Amino acid sequence: MIPASIRSKRIEYAIRDVVVPAKELEKKGIEVLKLNIGDPIKYDFKTPEHIRKAAAEAVMNSRSEYSPSEGLLELREAIVDKEKGYGVDITTDDIVVTTGVTEALMLIFAAALDPGQEILVPGPTYPPYITYPTFYDGIPKTYRTVEEDGWHPDPDDIRKKISRKTKAIAVINPNNPTGAYYDERIIREIADIAAENDIFMISDEIYDKMLYDNEFVSPAKIAKDVPMIILNGISKVYLAPGWRIGYLAIRDVDGKLEDIRDGIMRQARARLCANTPLQLGYLAALKGPQDHIKKTMDKLRERRDYVAKRVAEIDGLSVVPPKGAFYMFIKVDGCRDDKKFVLELLREKHVLTVHGSGFCPIYGKGHFRIVNLPPVEYLEEAFNRIEEFMKERKNI
Amino acid sequence: MIPASIRSKRIEYAIRDVVVPAKELEKKGIEVLKLNIGDPIKYDFKTPEHIRKAAAEAVMNSRSEYSPSEGLLELREAIVDKEKGYGVDITTDDIVVTTGVTEALMLIFAAALDPGQEILVPGPTYPPYITYPTFYDGIPKTYRTVEEDGWHPDPDDIRKKISRKTKAIAVINPNNPTGAYYDERIIREIADIAAENDIFMISDEIYDKMLYDNEFVSPAKIAKDVPMIILNGISKVYLAPGWRIGYLAIRDVDGKLEDIRDGIMRQARARLCANTPLQLGYLAALKGPQDHIKKTMDKLRERRDYVAKRVAEIDGLSVVPPKGAFYMFIKVDGCRDDKKFVLELLREKHVLTVHGSGFCPIYGKGHFRIVNLPPVEYLEEAFNRIEEFMKERKNI
Repeated sequence: MIPASIRSKRIEYAIRDVVVPAKELEKKGIEVLKLNIGDPIKYDFKTPEHIRKAAAEAVMNSRSEYSPSEGLLELREAIVDKEKGYGVDITTDDIVVTTGVTEALMLIFAAALDPGQEILVPGPTYPPYITYPTFYDGIPKTYRTVEEDGWHPDPDDIRKKISRKTKAIAVINPNNPTGAYYDERIIREIADIAAENDIFMISDEIYDKMLYDNEFVSPAKIAKDVPMIILNGISKVYLAPGWRIGYLAIRDVDGKLEDIRDGIMRQARARLCANTPLQLGYLAALKGPQDHIKKTMDKLRERRDYVAKRVAEIDGLSVVPPKGAFYMFIKVDGCRDDKKFVLELLREKHVLTVHGSGFCPIYGKGHFRIVNLPPVEYLEEAFNRIEEFMKERKNI
Repeated sequence: MIPASIRSKRIEYAIRDVVVPAKELEKKGIEVLKLNIGDPIKYDFKTPEHIRKAAAEAVMNSRSEYSPSEGLLELREAIVDKEKGYGVDITTDDIVVTTGVTEALMLIFAAALDPGQEILVPGPTYPPYITYPTFYDGIPKTYRTVEEDGWHPDPDDIRKKISRKTKAIAVINPNNPTGAYYDERIIREIADIAAENDIFMISDEIYDKMLYDNEFVSPAKIAKDVPMIILNGISKVYLAPGWRIGYLAIRDVDGKLEDIRDGIMRQARARLCANTPLQLGYLAALKGPQDHIKKTMDKLRERRDYVAKRVAEIDGLSVVPPKGAFYMFIKVDGCRDDKKFVLELLREKHVLTVHGSGFCPIYGKGHFRIVNLPPVEYLEEAFNRIEEFMKERKNI
């Protein structure tokens, strides 16, 4: 056998460990209730019609050419306008349209990290924040976020974990998997730490307009003194995750990100471009009516509240009600092995969730993540089964 | 300034060096005749209507969900059928649908190369075959292809350059930038070298159906004994480069590629998926009528023949007429600096081409590459200017 690289073997994919046994059950004809997928389209959501129409029109007009590596100019203009609305001052030259936020993360980590250099990421976190720094020979370090404090980051822990090797601090806000939304005070504190250490921030804002009660405040507005790379895209707010259109925006201060910008741009040119016709769909999304967002949030609110009620009624479970996004990170009292818990729940009750340690072995353990995307009837059946499971629960 | 990684600085993009001064001319209002872009859509080609319709329908049906990381099953089935037509025996489990062949190359090189390991690539070559092995700490070595022999690879040179560190030999056939199409005998000889050294082959077939006279014969059919990864996609044959849909197919022998397959699949899952709706366009492309291909090739043949005639009439230029793809790699007699040649041609006559050394500093030098994609009138004007330039040419 021809051996594979060490680099590729470093990629772990914890979430997969629970998907494989679920597929095996399904092959046997067993219906599995899925609370694991962060994809609204798999439930009862659709991409808004005016966005679909714009993309379909682009396809019909044979907008099949390579676009500029940094993305179509008209889309970058719309992104500049969007960010201006948040009080963020960037130009079209600061933007790279990417194949989803995932590609943006690859470009950033590959541009920023030499071997052994570190990046601070929230714990628990969205898994690519662990995968890609590791893939590029860097070291992701998780900082503590505090469940009792609405899953807010702990600035003292960030200070403790900063070293001379640290290149950046990442903030995912609203957060996946906890649904936390951070107070401005916390963002300011993290920004101060970045400023003191002359490092930059990564601000992942993919759920920016998916807040239940708050109005999103951009970290780049709060911290005008800290170089920052902002991430966003069409996936969640505009309900089109499979279109693979996102962006990164470099909000620099005093040219501190010039070198990293060059490292990002070199990669962006080598990989050619994000797909062209669906960029025009995102353009329509940014410039068109936004009223689908309220409708989406109304549905999600009802579902969140339903889950919160059920969780409160089940002995041994608790949850911090999320302020944004569509995830709920549920605590299991006295849980010794959350992966085993999730696998047993799947095997016995055919409900698929994701184990908390898949999002962080330290700060995620003893939890499981669900999505509050499915309709209430679906959630009801799932939580009936979870309730039964908790009653029968043995020593997990 | 926060320093960028060494890795990102390694990315060179020679072709860009000529695009920047061209853009500067355009900013001054000067019209530049562009013979540099391998994108049919930028000239007078369109994605065939039935393919556009299928993709637009997928968009309108809100096929906006994440697809499986390895690609939609129905598309992989169609790819299996396509490869079966070439006598290649693979299953849907052997395929990963990718964001263009570029992403496929990234997945393969990252999965195959540990630091210092080598990959043999044709010289001259399509630049990502240099960029990505280098990006992942590997070493691309170019093997000689021989202009006097229709740009066929020189097997002796391949033998000479194989070392214990070599992991694979790449073949791009039909070739970019030379337009060569390889005799079966040569493929067999390269496959023998791979087999003797227990390494695998990479077969880039993105121009497979763009042959002027020959019928494509798959290297995987010729060399059933050699593990091979096949690359293809919608970009060229189906005239949709900006859709970013390609694939890699692992044609294994005795499980030799199992480990590398695992390394590829880990990466594929981490990056989620290629865009979903345009995958359904590629499905329609593979299963629908193929008659646009003959029409495309008829146009390209006329344009190729026109360029060949003009080149033959110009003192100091010569070209091996391409057998496939849409590039012509033109030799400049006694040229000492092909980059300077191309830049002067741009500055004095406003015709943009790409310098041969951008495709390989050894085997590409003294040449420039054009595309025979534009209509004859456009080519006529461009070659009038090239002819003038050659007459006035000084000591370049």
